[in-house]
Order: sequence, then structure tokens, then C-alpha cells
Amino acid sequence: MNDQTADFSAYREDGSPERLAIDTIRTLAMDAVQKANSGHPGTPMALAPVAYTLWSQFLRYDPGKPDWPNRDRFVLSVGHASMLLYSLLHLAGVKEIDADGNETGKPAVSLDDIKQFRQLDSKTPGHPEYRMTTGVETTTGPLGQGCGNSVGMAIAERALAAHFNRGEFTLFDHDVYAFAGDGDMMEGVSQEAASVAGHLKLSNLCWVYDSNHITIEGGTDLAFTEDVGKRFEGYGWHVIHVNDANDRGEFARAIESFKATDDRPTFIVVHSVIGYGSPIQGTQKAHSDAMGEEVIKATKKAYGWPEDAQFLVPDAVKTLLQDAMTERAVPLREKWDADFEAYRGAFPEQAAELDLLRQGKLPDGWQADIPTFEADAKGLASRDAGGKVLNAIAPHVPMLIGGAADLAPSTKTLLTFQGAGAFEPGSYGGRNMHFGVREHAMGSIANGMALSYLRSYTGTFLVFSDYMRAPIRLAAIMEVPTIFVFTHDSIGVGEDGPTHQPIEHLATLRAIPGLDTIRPGDANEVAVAWKVALTHTHEPTALIFSRQAIQTLDRSKYASADGLEKGGYVLGDAEGGEPEFILIATGSELPLAVQAHEKLTAEGIKSRVVSLPSWYLFEKQDRAYRESVLPPKVTKRLAIEQAGSLGWDRYVTSDGGTITMSTFGASAPITKLQEKFGFTIDNVVKMARELLEGSKA
Amino acid sequence: MNDQTADFSAYREDGSPERLAIDTIRTLAMDAVQKANSGHPGTPMALAPVAYTLWSQFLRYDPGKPDWPNRDRFVLSVGHASMLLYSLLHLAGVKEIDADGNETGKPAVSLDDIKQFRQLDSKTPGHPEYRMTTGVETTTGPLGQGCGNSVGMAIAERALAAHFNRGEFTLFDHDVYAFAGDGDMMEGVSQEAASVAGHLKLSNLCWVYDSNHITIEGGTDLAFTEDVGKRFEGYGWHVIHVNDANDRGEFARAIESFKATDDRPTFIVVHSVIGYGSPIQGTQKAHSDAMGEEVIKATKKAYGWPEDAQFLVPDAVKTLLQDAMTERAVPLREKWDADFEAYRGAFPEQAAELDLLRQGKLPDGWQADIPTFEADAKGLASRDAGGKVLNAIAPHVPMLIGGAADLAPSTKTLLTFQGAGAFEPGSYGGRNMHFGVREHAMGSIANGMALSYLRSYTGTFLVFSDYMRAPIRLAAIMEVPTIFVFTHDSIGVGEDGPTHQPIEHLATLRAIPGLDTIRPGDANEVAVAWKVALTHTHEPTALIFSRQAIQTLDRSKYASADGLEKGGYVLGDAEGGEPEFILIATGSELPLAVQAHEKLTAEGIKSRVVSLPSWYLFEKQDRAYRESVLPPKVTKRLAIEQAGSLGWDRYVTSDGGTITMSTFGASAPITKLQEKFGFTIDNVVKMARELLEGSKA
Repeated sequence: MNDQTADFSAYREDGSPERLAIDTIRTLAMDAVQKANSGHPGTPMALAPVAYTLWSQFLRYDPGKPDWPNRDRFVLSVGHASMLLYSLLHLAGVKEIDADGNETGKPAVSLDDIKQFRQLDSKTPGHPEYRMTTGVETTTGPLGQGCGNSVGMAIAERALAAHFNRGEFTLFDHDVYAFAGDGDMMEGVSQEAASVAGHLKLSNLCWVYDSNHITIEGGTDLAFTEDVGKRFEGYGWHVIHVNDANDRGEFARAIESFKATDDRPTFIVVHSVIGYGSPIQGTQKAHSDAMGEEVIKATKKAYGWPEDAQFLVPDAVKTLLQDAMTERAVPLREKWDADFEAYRGAFPEQAAELDLLRQGKLPDGWQADIPTFEADAKGLASRDAGGKVLNAIAPHVPMLIGGAADLAPSTKTLLTFQGAGAFEPGSYGGRNMHFGVREHAMGSIANGMALSYLRSYTGTFLVFSDYMRAPIRLAAIMEVPTIFVFTHDSIGVGEDGPTHQPIEHLATLRAIPGLDTIRPGDANEVAVAWKVALTHTHEPTALIFSRQAIQTLDRSKYASADGLEKGGYVLGDAEGGEPEFILIATGSELPLAVQAHEKLTAEGIKSRVVSLPSWYLFEKQDRAYRESVLPPKVTKRLAIEQAGSLGWDRYVTSDGGTITMSTFGASAPITKLQEKFGFTIDNVVKMARELLEGSKA
Repeated sequence: MNDQTADFSAYREDGSPERLAIDTIRTLAMDAVQKANSGHPGTPMALAPVAYTLWSQFLRYDPGKPDWPNRDRFVLSVGHASMLLYSLLHLAGVKEIDADGNETGKPAVSLDDIKQFRQLDSKTPGHPEYRMTTGVETTTGPLGQGCGNSVGMAIAERALAAHFNRGEFTLFDHDVYAFAGDGDMMEGVSQEAASVAGHLKLSNLCWVYDSNHITIEGGTDLAFTEDVGKRFEGYGWHVIHVNDANDRGEFARAIESFKATDDRPTFIVVHSVIGYGSPIQGTQKAHSDAMGEEVIKATKKAYGWPEDAQFLVPDAVKTLLQDAMTERAVPLREKWDADFEAYRGAFPEQAAELDLLRQGKLPDGWQADIPTFEADAKGLASRDAGGKVLNAIAPHVPMLIGGAADLAPSTKTLLTFQGAGAFEPGSYGGRNMHFGVREHAMGSIANGMALSYLRSYTGTFLVFSDYMRAPIRLAAIMEVPTIFVFTHDSIGVGEDGPTHQPIEHLATLRAIPGLDTIRPGDANEVAVAWKVALTHTHEPTALIFSRQAIQTLDRSKYASADGLEKGGYVLGDAEGGEPEFILIATGSELPLAVQAHEKLTAEGIKSRVVSLPSWYLFEKQDRAYRESVLPPKVTKRLAIEQAGSLGWDRYVTSDGGTITMSTFGASAPITKLQEKFGFTIDNVVKMARELLEGSKA
């Protein structure tokens, strides 16, 4: 059925074209979920007027140029309400950009795409997926993450403005909007992120909180009775209440109040009715699953909509949103383009820099100052080497911005060069983020920064990666190159004890598809690891550093640390390259393997020592290379790592063994722990001999 | 040096014995950290007067009976300030209870133990460790966890009171105190937990927030400028400010106000000076690391303390705290003991039940109603089977209390039998917790419940285990048998897509030492899995259930599901038990393995099918059993699991292969996903043939 045959004579209420567009969004949500037989119609139906008002009256977004750098960002933290976003992208006439950044001329989301909701390889997956659908600014679904991302995007805008806006040129002054629900508000990550945003006085950030009093288990009175607005006042936000999601005027005034506020972020509490207009409105039944044909018909009837129409976009609506957005945004975007050309003349260096950022490339000479570390038996902690390398790179990469979760003096992630400064209210040109003890938000914020041209990094202890698993995973799903620095990577932590000693964490990071986990074995491997992390364009990286000093190997005697680029390499070998035994190690255990190798060599045992800092990169190599490092015929192998053994069987074969951790650690000085858990040269040599003799322990 | 030679003539200020005791705590913290050359002296020095006031004037805790069920609980969420707790336990004269629950007659913490601070196998590890030191109610250190635990303990008190208090007998009416710092307050988990506590109106809960304006990176003005008190008012707490941590009277009045408040939890903001009295007081330098002899001497001088005295406990202090606590608590505890004997007469059943709880045992007959499931080709989702089994057990185990993070209708963890009800203000006898969308707090709260006699369980989707890794790990470190139910365990989730489809999560759980991760393969394995989980006394369990239906196997044709108790077992075998090929599977892939096994058998290939639901239990079996299931000579093996492959090499050998996930999933109907990713009988049979022919893919 199309508009020609649809009967709108009964169309009720204000009957405006805007209202027709809003009900189009609502009915598309019901129809798409019904056809897919899964999904979440209730929230799109509740928020349609709010979203429509924002997009049509305020959002500075040129549908023809969805990659305009200064566009306002819209984040749907309630990712399950994906149909809201798909309908908006469709009605806005947003144009598709392909993976290479080229315009395809196709719509980002066609009506056919909407009919393919939740089908294999469609552009309309169950939750909005970054890179899969033009106009989706971030992947959402795991609750609270969109909130954190939006804070990162608002930070990025402030950083980009501080760096690029010059003289009369304002290249960056956009806003960031996030739609959040009760679930987002309950999650700790959003609470941490809200505290950061309030502290940083991010007046370019506006969260619209859909307060519908319904959760999956029932009414919010079951579990969520706090005064959310008061809490946000505590965080230092500007709080506004909108009593009826259908009152477009009230909501528009709230957005105007946000735009007039220049000293803090804004939190708009919108009271809505989930599944608005349906017989099951206001109940948890409206949250998810297909509503059923009868309910849908009744709802359409209540809207004054043709009951039998499916996937109907009335003619009066077809370009309504697109026209409104275009009228407002195109002049802004065209002025920006013109300004940028003038800027290029006035500030050619900065303009070129922004070009590179948009292409995901690094400035020339960024590697120029990366140090080479001299052989040193005493060595230095890889966290210390990491700090030196980071500080050698960062002056050349102005948009490399990050920080730690209140552990910078320990993670060594502080940028200490002249002018680096802190990113704080009043100094948004600062390079050092102080995330506070908020690991989860840190990860989520860093992803938002990465989604807005920044090369972001985070820092905390490896054991606390547990607090930020979700954003690490999402970086991998989205293929954004966030860099996660984790120090204090083993029982080498010493006296702080089991709660602070990672055991399982290397395995848990290695298990994430698309994440490059690198645990470099000395200072020169650290330098290569940082290089690899920065050159990744589609992979996040976890850099794993030690608390304790690690010997800096003599690279004139052993292979170059550049071997790290292949994930694993032969560091030292038996004479003639025909080993009978292979020692494999990563990180702080590499010197132990080297020393054992030297001892075995002195005893006439032909051993090879393999450094395997990145399983991810190693497994990307072809079989020939992998087998050149780990020849299948040499099955006697010993892996040494101060971590759990899970996964090592892949490399040590059934004839091999590991010196790893099978329990949690303990609180004691490091040397006591190394003895207790067998990380000594004597034990390595003993295990090697046992394996060679076939008496596998 | 002892008190006889110590010169206190210069002892300043009020000079009271209490003040002497407080400075004893402070100097012990400095001395212990100095001797260990690591640790955190600043917070014990700041909070000594607050802690001493609470313990000496309010805490209902009999030092001679630290396992008295109705004792007040004291949680040191600022676990790095462990020396505060060790000194308190020492000065309180708390008596040691060994692992079997017997009194040893020794002190929980002797002065010698304090001198062994942070040494291998000492009772004074870097952070307080449950089970290692009597009087440590929970393991703390990872920030925010103690806060969550304390909410769980307060919930437990309410649940125990509702269940056991009868007539004139009040067996449970204790309070729970937690000391928290700026770091705790910034963490999302504490914010989630605070919201739960406010919602539940836990008036037996008091958090003392040490607001010292210092974090590791510097002043809190760097990252933490919110109005915390206002936020807690938003959560519905009673908020009190104490302006000077040294004003014992002001703090005592705050506690009195807490005790007089019967409708909400209490939050006391105490303004303190970190490293009080030292030349570096009020700076981040006072947070951690040994202060150095000069600073310590100067501090002791400022206290009027003998500068050269180390580990000095003045005679006037030796029994001061112990006497105060004993005087107050012993009569209460003795009355409780007498009451309980009378109660035993009046309510023998309930008394016996409490006896069992204290022994960590289950009531007789708890398994009586666990169903056996008939063979059924259509079967049912393991989440559904899980719900049935849970509801068959729970009526017999009254203190089995838990719930989901707003997903109960999906996780099927709701107790639905008559009278189960919701745990809510006004109905603390309810059995169903509504945790809200707060996975992290849910885990932490469940641990607190488990530490207070309850058998607690949680429920959410497996992918959201990422949000609650820290409490899962802590349950394993503490060896408490919290049960974590995770459903929607694979790409079987279908249309919700990659953000909701776990890939790496099985590996990440299997990697945690001491956690039993069980992924049962049909309804009867689910029943055994729940039995195993409940009979664990020292291990937490992760129960992994499917969203989609799984065939219920015909156990007359295949081996009994009781094999799950050994982690893995031969489900079906080649004739004569001499297989040439082994199929290994878990969970929803088990029927696939069985069907492939049947097809291979029909083709004359001698295959065995092994169900391996718990790697943890399987690896506890002796080698003979393990090799009877997976004979070393049968190296051609294929593992099938809708998850990442990490770890499977241990079981499939170098000659084997896996059908697993190497990427994230996708949004599509489940059958499309199974085809796309190769989870079909045809593909299993094809892979089996290829492996047998040696042409390993």
C-alpha cells in the first residue's frame, strides 16, 4: 500500500506533517519488528517525537555529507531502539559512505533496508553497528556505553576546537547528543562518565533521558526509585524536566536551554510512555518482541493510521525531515568547507594535519624520536620504557590524547614534555586526561574520542582491565584503534597481593577477536609495540607492561626487536638453526628464557628462544613463517609466562610444557614469589631437561 | 623499645588513652609500611580516630567470638589501608578461628604478625584477604567492591532477620559499616550499589566516606569535583557531614544519628587529612609507599610519640579497645547464645537450619524435587531447564536468594513458587532480588550475601559477564560459592547481533582459577550442573545456559548426565570402545556432536562423543580418568563450540581441529548464523572426514 491508497481521513490530533512523520517512525518500528519477529518497538514509539524534534529543528547535520567533521553527533545509547535511528536516517535521506570513505550515491538506509531489519548482512542489524551503517556514530546496545562514548566525543570536540580553531576560524563547535534510558542510568559506566562530564564542564554535551518507568522485569519501582535528576545536579549538570515526550514545544525549549548553557553539560529528563499509542503502552510488554498483528492494527487505528498499511511512508513525509535538516545544515556545512579552504591558506600545516586525521593517518616524522635502548643487564620496567616511548611520540602527534584512571605516576602514561598540560575546564588544549578512578568510563570515553579523530589511550593496572572489558570489546567490534595501556602485569606486582596480581587477564584479552594484545619483553620491544599500536587503523591494542625492571637485551647478540611486528620471532637460536628444544616467553619472562637458553647451550643442549609478544600478529603470519619460528618437528617446547596457562597448548604441543600460574598469586616481595611459583633459571632449566628426557611433569 | 622506656612526657593534645590508642594505630601503620618497604600509611593515619571511635563505642563485636552470627560487620572497602584493620584486630584482641571453624587460642593478628606485613604466608597481606585473617569480613582492594559487598551483607541481615526472627526472638539485628574513599566513590560499582541500597531502604547500612581531597595523581580537583553528598541524597540516603576526622564527638553523634535512622541507609562524609600529622600530610605523597625514617620520626615527634620507638603499643593501650568492645558486646553475645538455646526449644527446625547455614551445609532433601527430563528431540533451552531446576531446589533451601540484572524473564531465574515474592522494602522475606540493570553491583552484592550465610545467585546474559568480572574473580579468590547464572551463551542469541553474542566469554571464565564454569549440554546436564553448583562450598560457579532450545538426549541410549560431576565424560562411543575419532562438545553443540557421531557411525567411522561441560571439574580428575575419556592415542579429535577456540588446543591435540568462532557474530536468525559459521551436521561430518584423512584444514 502506498500513500495514494492510504486513507488518512481519520488522522487525529494536530494532524501536522510533523506528527505524520513521527507516527511514520512509530509504525515503521512496529512493522520492522513484526516482520523480523524480534526487536524492540516500544522505545522508538515513545521517543519518536523527541528525536524528530531534535533532528528536524536542531541537529546540525547535512544528510548529504554525513562525514562532515563539524556535524553534531547523535548517539543512541538505547541501542535496542535501533529502529528509531534507522527510521531517522531513512527519513533524513542520509547518503551512504563506503568503507573507503567514498560516497556511493545510495541512501544510508533505504526502505528496503528497513524491511531487512535484523537479517544477515543487512544494513539494519539488531543493534546499531558502527561501520555497517552510515550515520551510526558508534555501536551501542550494551547499556551505558553510548553515554560514555558521548562524553568522549564531547571531549574530542573540545580538544579539536582548542587545537584547530585559530583566529577567525571556528572549525569545531559542534554538540553531542545522547539518548539514554533507565538501563543506561542504572549502569555504573554512565554514572562514572556523567561525573567526568560534569567535572570537565562539557557544555557541548546533552543527554536526553527517556524516563518511562518501565524495565524488563516490570516497573522501575521494583529496582530504581532514586531521584536521577538530583544525582545529576550532584555531578554538576544542568537538569531540565520535560513532562510529556509528545510535547514538542516543551522539548524544543529544553534544547534551547541546553544551547544557551555554556558552563556545564545538560541533562534532559523526558517523561515518556513506552509503546505510546498501543493497547500495551506503558507496560513492559511494549519493550521488546513483535507486538502481534492485532496490537499493531489497534495502534495504527489509534494513531488514525491506515490499519493495513505496512512500511508506509506517506508522501507528505518523504522529504520533510530531509528538507528541514538540509535547509539548516547545508549552509553551515558549505560555509565550513569555504572556511576550511581559507584556513588551508592561512594555516596550511594545521589544515594538512586535519586532512591526515580524517584519513586516519599519522603525521610525517612521528617516529623520529623513538629511542633505541642500549643493552643493560639491570634494564628498566617496561612501563618505564613505555612512558619514554610515548613521550617521544606524543609531541609529533598532537591528537594523541589520553591518560590513566588515577594511576599515571604508576602506569607512566603521563605526557611530561613542555606544554603537554592537563585536559581540564579552561585548558582543553591539554594532552593529559585525568579520568579519575573510573576504568569503565575511561574505556568508553576513549572509544568516543577515537570515533572523533583522536588517537586515544588509557592507562591502568592489568588486573583492572576487568573493570573495562565492555569498551575493550566494543573497540574491537567497531574496529577503532583505541590503545589500552595495562601495567603491573603479573605477580611481579609483589606485595599488593592476589587482588592486584593478574593471572587470567592475558588470556582474557587474547580471547577478544580483533584486539592486538602485545606484551613486549624488553625496552626495545616496547618501542616497536608502541609503533605497531599507532600504525593500527582498524584494531585496538592492549599494551601490557611490567611493574618491575626487565633486562634490556643485547640486540647485537640477539635478533632485532623489529621481529615483534610479526608477533613472534626467533630471538636466539641453536648453532646451525637446528634446535632440539624451544623456549617461548613473553614480557618480563623473556630474560629468564634467554638466561636458560644460555645455560642450556653451555650444557650442550641445542635450544632456541622465541619471543612471542603478540599472538594476534603471529597468527596473522602465513604458515611458512609461523613454522619457521616454531618448526613442527621440534615438539619439545617450554612456554614461560607469569600468567595462567590457558591458550598456551597451541604453541607448546602435547609434548611440551609450561611454567605458568595455576592459582592466584600472593602478597610478598617479588623474589619470594618468583621462587614460590617457579620463575627461576634453575626451574626453567630443570623443566627443560625433564621435557627433553620425556618425563613430562 | 617498650612502654617502660618510652617517654610520653611530650604527648600533646588531649592526652587521653583513646588518643594514645589512635596514635598507636597511626604509628603501627607507618612502621609496618616502612619495614615492608611498601604499603599505604596515609589512610590509616587519617581514619584512625574515626575507626577507633566506631570500634570502641559502637561496634557490636565480641573479640572472643568473631564468628558470632549477629555481630556487626565492618568492611574496609579502602583495602589498601589494610594496616588500619590489622591494627584494630590486634588492639581489639580478636581471637583466631581456623579454616575448620575452630578457635586456636591465638590472636587473629599478633604484633609479630604486624611486623610480617606483606610477607609471604603472613596473616597481614598487602590487602585484607578473607579466610587468611580472622576478622577480615571480605577481601578488598579493587575499589568499590567492599561497598558492594556491604550492601549484600545488609541485605543478608534483612533476609536472615525476616526468616529467623520469630516471636520474642531477635536473632538478627546487626548493622553493616563500610569505610570507603574517593576511589570507591568514583567507581561505578559503588554507585550502582548505593542506588540499590537506597531503593531497598537498608537502614542497617552505614558508609563512612573518607573525603581527603587527595588521589594518586594529585588533588581531587583534577578529576573529582562533584557533590557526593547530594548524589547520595538522590539515591535516597541519609547524608551527614563530619568536618574533622579528629573530632571523635562529632563522628560519634553521626553514628548515633545513623542508629536512629530506620528508613534509609546512612552516608557519613568525613573530612580527613591523609597522612595526618606527618610533614607530607594532605598530599598524595602520603598515600602510598614507605614514608622514610626521617618523615616517620618527625611525625612521631608531632604526635608527642617517642621518636625512636617502633611497633610500640603502650601499656595504657594494650587492652583499652578490647576492654571497651568486650564490655559492650559480650553481654549481647551471651544473651544471644542463651536466646538461641531457647529458640532451639521453640523453633527446633529453624535452629537446625541456622546450624546448617553456619556450617555451609544444605538442608536434607534439597535435591528431592529436581526433575529428570525425558528424551525430547525438540527439547528446551538450557535457560528454561535451569529455571525449572532452580524452582525445584529453592523451596527446600530458604536462604537460596538471588535474581537478575533486570533480565529475569529472559534468564528464567525468577522463583515462581507460591510465596517466593520479591525482596523489597517492607517484604524482606521475599526471595527474588531485583538488581536492576547493575551487573557489577549485582556480582559484588551477591558476594556480600554469600559472606553472610546466604546461597546467592545472579542472572544476566553471558556477554554482560564483562560488566561483572571483578566480583566473579573476587568470589574465586575468597573461595565463596556464589552462583553466577549466564544465559544467551552464544551466537544462538540470533538477531540481537554481535554486541549481545558472547564469543570470548567462555574462555575468560575458564581462565579464572578456582571458578567452576559449567556449560551443560541438555536439560539433564542442567540438573546435575545446579546440583554441583549448590554442593560447592569453596568455589563459585558460572552456569552457562542457552537462549535456544536444545534437544534432550535419550539417556537410555547415551550415558547418564551424572557424568557431568567429573567435568567430562564419554556420552556415546564406538562399538567396543575403540574409537578412531573423538567429537568433543559442550552446551548447545552437544546434540550436533551426537548427530554427527550417529552419521559417522552409519558411515562406518568409529567415533566417540565426549561431553565436556566443565573443564574445571575435568582437570580435577586423575590422569587415568582423563585418559579414559580422551585416550592419548586417539589424536584425531574435533571440538565443537559456538565460542572462540582459545584453550581448546589442550583437548584436541595438534592433530585435531575445532569448529569454533574466530570472529564476532552477526545479527540474523539463528539458523542463518549456524550455517554461516559452520555449526551444521554436514560441516561437522566434513571436518571429521578431513581430519581423519589427515588433510587438516
